[in-house]
Amino acid sequence: MKINYAPNSSNLLTFHDKIPAFLNGSDTPRHYLERCLETLSEREPHIRAFVTLSLERARITADHSSKRYQDGRPLSPLDGMPYALKDVFETEDMPMQLGSRLFEGYETGWDSACAYFLRRGGAVLVGKTVLTEFAFGEPGPTRNAWDTERTPGGSSSGSGAAVGASMVAMAIGTQVRGSVLRPACFNGTWALKPSFGSMNLGGGFPSPPSVAHLGILGGSLADTWVSACWLSQNAGGAPGHPSLRGVTSLPTAQKPKRLARLDTPGWDQTSGETRAIFDEMILKLKRTGVEILDRTDDPELEQYEQDLVELRKTMEVILTFEGRWPLMMYADRSPELIGPRVLDRAHAADDVTRDQYENALKWSEGARLRHEALASKYDGFVTLNSIGPAPRGLPVGNTVYGEQSSVLGIPALNMPLLAQDGMPLGVQLLGYFRRDVEIVAMAHWILHSMSQKESQE
Amino acid sequence: MKINYAPNSSNLLTFHDKIPAFLNGSDTPRHYLERCLETLSEREPHIRAFVTLSLERARITADHSSKRYQDGRPLSPLDGMPYALKDVFETEDMPMQLGSRLFEGYETGWDSACAYFLRRGGAVLVGKTVLTEFAFGEPGPTRNAWDTERTPGGSSSGSGAAVGASMVAMAIGTQVRGSVLRPACFNGTWALKPSFGSMNLGGGFPSPPSVAHLGILGGSLADTWVSACWLSQNAGGAPGHPSLRGVTSLPTAQKPKRLARLDTPGWDQTSGETRAIFDEMILKLKRTGVEILDRTDDPELEQYEQDLVELRKTMEVILTFEGRWPLMMYADRSPELIGPRVLDRAHAADDVTRDQYENALKWSEGARLRHEALASKYDGFVTLNSIGPAPRGLPVGNTVYGEQSSVLGIPALNMPLLAQDGMPLGVQLLGYFRRDVEIVAMAHWILHSMSQKESQE
Repeated sequence: MKINYAPNSSNLLTFHDKIPAFLNGSDTPRHYLERCLETLSEREPHIRAFVTLSLERARITADHSSKRYQDGRPLSPLDGMPYALKDVFETEDMPMQLGSRLFEGYETGWDSACAYFLRRGGAVLVGKTVLTEFAFGEPGPTRNAWDTERTPGGSSSGSGAAVGASMVAMAIGTQVRGSVLRPACFNGTWALKPSFGSMNLGGGFPSPPSVAHLGILGGSLADTWVSACWLSQNAGGAPGHPSLRGVTSLPTAQKPKRLARLDTPGWDQTSGETRAIFDEMILKLKRTGVEILDRTDDPELEQYEQDLVELRKTMEVILTFEGRWPLMMYADRSPELIGPRVLDRAHAADDVTRDQYENALKWSEGARLRHEALASKYDGFVTLNSIGPAPRGLPVGNTVYGEQSSVLGIPALNMPLLAQDGMPLGVQLLGYFRRDVEIVAMAHWILHSMSQKESQE
Repeated sequence: MKINYAPNSSNLLTFHDKIPAFLNGSDTPRHYLERCLETLSEREPHIRAFVTLSLERARITADHSSKRYQDGRPLSPLDGMPYALKDVFETEDMPMQLGSRLFEGYETGWDSACAYFLRRGGAVLVGKTVLTEFAFGEPGPTRNAWDTERTPGGSSSGSGAAVGASMVAMAIGTQVRGSVLRPACFNGTWALKPSFGSMNLGGGFPSPPSVAHLGILGGSLADTWVSACWLSQNAGGAPGHPSLRGVTSLPTAQKPKRLARLDTPGWDQTSGETRAIFDEMILKLKRTGVEILDRTDDPELEQYEQDLVELRKTMEVILTFEGRWPLMMYADRSPELIGPRVLDRAHAADDVTRDQYENALKWSEGARLRHEALASKYDGFVTLNSIGPAPRGLPVGNTVYGEQSSVLGIPALNMPLLAQDGMPLGVQLLGYFRRDVEIVAMAHWILHSMSQKESQE
């Protein structure tokens, strides 16, 4: 099944713009949920985004929410928002199966920090979404929201497809090598991977933890930001880290003065057609008066591009060393229930030395400083989010554009602004540590600027 | 039941000095274990250090270890070492009950990182030890190893008592406000709370995580250091942190050149008798030629002492804010199964603002820098570990001396060098971040120096 994707007409669900209607009674969270569930009953059999559904409780929760709006007392800006949760987080009422046969039916009976605070805020949990095994191994059964012959991306496969297919307004994913932004890119959704430490991953399975991030996928930039910001400010950041800063509603559009356009090691692997589409977007952006420099314009950017090559090796060392636990334990106990990629990492973990790991951490620290030093020159960074639109088949796609933001801990957005062959193609906007709100404000401006440009043409 | 404690004659179990005997066949880990279990069967009914025992498996594990030594192939320097694990860590074969009625019988079926790597190293897990509720609430039933009318300290109550009563050679605890060092102090054991991040707490319940540390209690300084070092280097540090550095065996004794003697906010609460005993020890140490300065000698130390007052408020903000999850969730779900201290913190958590928390984190960062700046003047810091020997009754003792090392993330040792009223009284030695091995080398020197002094007198 194939649906033609066009950035300006393939509208996804939006939620925050419906709140006035909830408050004046012309719509209710229960009705909103029923529209989601109608879509879900039609599309889920083909897309298979969910591993576990919780429809009965979702309806009850939405009814409670409807009542609160009726009383003029919603609990939070997320009250009544139907969302999906990647199956790496515990919930009190569903198993946490991690895409692994080892965790079939595993239940703790407790909510993870994000599930608990979203529940407190009145958000409506529709179900838990498919991921690759332990978020990096064998792919699950999920298909792309726009073409069921293609991958939804991963590891947050179901989260990307569920938002892309308008089955929910928002989904939670996790990312190490682009596992939030790439499914967003492939399914045409917005997504924010916030700065390292700004989200509370308690009660989840972040692996490897030192480079794992919780990210938000949404049908609109507003829904994405408001969800991330509310969750960070209420669940707190990761212990020892502050919450996200900035306005809790969609920030005012802010025109970037100067952006750095990055090749990253991804450009070499990107097809000519995708390059041309991206180049055209950069040209459009330049025509609006945004200065955009690249490695050929600034030796410091060339040096930074070199860092991004080294960064991939660093990531590999970190990923592998942090596989010592629990992956080595899983591989000891039940190798027959583990896929080849996970087994490989478990076996490789013992070969990375403590010194290699410590050097990788030190290198990352230095690279973070070099990144932050660019703040005096550039408001942000723009690049692709994948080497092309979602490929055919199930493997979840090339991770090359996805590692930079995790090693550097910087905020990164997927902006669903482009298309190729009737499939979504995302643009990645990256910023500076703990200055997440700034890239959201710039994305807000770019979104409007691109839409206007196109309608003029 | 009361046993008179004297630092130089109340010998605890030691393990690493037995390895030659294991290798030459004159002793075996199984025999060693049986001696532990004999002590355990005699003393445990009065002391109640354990919440769950695993004696059958311990014996099997010890037999395997005996065979390996017989073959000349021990797995690690901990092979055959009987140890106890605070019941805040998961194990594949016992429940993790957290001292809480909410977690009665709770089992995950997986080993925490420390349990898994200690198993891989051949260590013999005897059982899981009693703690206060969630490691800070209501005390458990454990009694002091030297006087069953007195508290063993907490929150690692059973870990302290089990080592103090020679039921095991080593125990694992966790510490936020001195929960490792104070039970060590009260039960007359050695203990090391390593630098923040140098131990892997995966699969445990560190609360609050940003100031929680895994610590080692041992019958000797060698056992304490070798266990901490081996575990850190094999399980890895916490994700994103390097392992402990330095020799993996007991470091050569190193005479400190100059130490700072700290009052901390604890001195004002310390009785005259305890002060006099500590003062006498400082005097002895000075007589050996170690220069010891205090707040009256150095304005920078006076400033640092002021920091230690402010530090207590900072700790309170951090503890409370990080109670947002999971404590608020527990209090929502089952307040009737939760003790008053835990309920209080859960209820207070919502009153601490994000800004207060962020400011507390920033203050801690600054205080860490001011601490590290003292490295040019002082080799380390010496103070008490409690306001006196273990008090009568069950409450686990005053935390005032225990917070400094957790907020600053610095290594801290309990040296069981003193006695008062026939009860142990520990001395605290503190060092610099990630330079743990240095305080161990200094403690090694102080231990010998104090013993010689006493035998001369």
